Amino acid sequence: MKLLEERILREGQVRPGNVLKVDCFLNHQLDVELLDAIGAEFHRIFGGDGINKIVTIEASGIAIACMTARHFGVPVVFAKKAKSKNIDGDVYTSVVHSFTYGRDYDITLSKKFLSPADRVLIVDDFLANGKAMKGLLDVCRQAGAQVAGIGICIEKGFQPGGDELRRAGYKVASLAIVDHMDDDSLTFRQQD
Amino acid sequence: MKLLEERILREGQVRPGNVLKVDCFLNHQLDVELLDAIGAEFHRIFGGDGINKIVTIEASGIAIACMTARHFGVPVVFAKKAKSKNIDGDVYTSVVHSFTYGRDYDITLSKKFLSPADRVLIVDDFLANGKAMKGLLDVCRQAGAQVAGIGICIEKGFQPGGDELRRAGYKVASLAIVDHMDDDSLTFRQQD
Repeated sequence: MKLLEERILREGQVRPGNVLKVDCFLNHQLDVELLDAIGAEFHRIFGGDGINKIVTIEASGIAIACMTARHFGVPVVFAKKAKSKNIDGDVYTSVVHSFTYGRDYDITLSKKFLSPADRVLIVDDFLANGKAMKGLLDVCRQAGAQVAGIGICIEKGFQPGGDELRRAGYKVASLAIVDHMDDDSLTFRQQD
Repeated sequence: MKLLEERILREGQVRPGNVLKVDCFLNHQLDVELLDAIGAEFHRIFGGDGINKIVTIEASGIAIACMTARHFGVPVVFAKKAKSKNIDGDVYTSVVHSFTYGRDYDITLSKKFLSPADRVLIVDDFLANGKAMKGLLDVCRQAGAQVAGIGICIEKGFQPGGDELRRAGYKVASLAIVDHMDDDSLTFRQQD
């Protein structure tokens, strides 16, 4: 997606530890016009796939999920990163390892919001090692929900998450795939 | 806002400890059509107030902020609940006490996203004791940003947060104010 690639080139910052900072527009400050265009693009790609729910994980995923769900006319459900007092005991849970924070955390999603009747599109801001995505897929598996597709804003193509998911047969659309990045340059994978 | 009050009456659940569960549509599963109507209502109320940024706090606030920002044509910035490795050191911070979780937590917001040039609308899903809101107001004060208004989906009118903010002179719009709730009934404050 040209619009997103251009924005990454203009405002993204490469930091030590394979960090690509895009907090100007994607995950701290949010450019809702860009997010709306991202949602429209996911709808162009997955609009014919019978999706009835958008699934994501807090926090930055929520913005992308909402702006995508508008185009599909379906609800969002987001997995939470820690069990809250306000949630009933009746939840799916999965353990996710975070490389960013160097620890494991639980994700939870209420059983009443995901079932075998659901055909979901999972969206998130980043895909790198794919640990959070595997947690979301595990939750969908527990619920018996079908995963019709995975929509990612920025995939780190030099990390294994995306290719593992494609090999496993998932329909993965990453709107920008960064194949190489360092202080001086950033290369995107050519896509159709 | 009739649409929101009706939805609360139909799907909200009162739980011990003054908990009003609205996770079917507002803060776990998200009804984006309702959120869009909420955003339109905030724009009707605050549209003439020169707002150039929507500020909120993760996680559920993000959905409301995005769907509101669309109507204003301005960006969102959300405060984070814990300092992440990915954030630069250059952040505003404030301490918030959570009654829900029974502990204090830090909120942070990058200095580059809030300044004296900003005139903000703060939005959130709930207002009860107002502790999170005070943290957000503190962050805006540190930034020198003007707070043009506070937009809340559900205010617990029997807790002090909303009235304290009104007494302090803020323009507070709560789309539904619950003045009383128990297992059998739920009463909304009459509003114009």
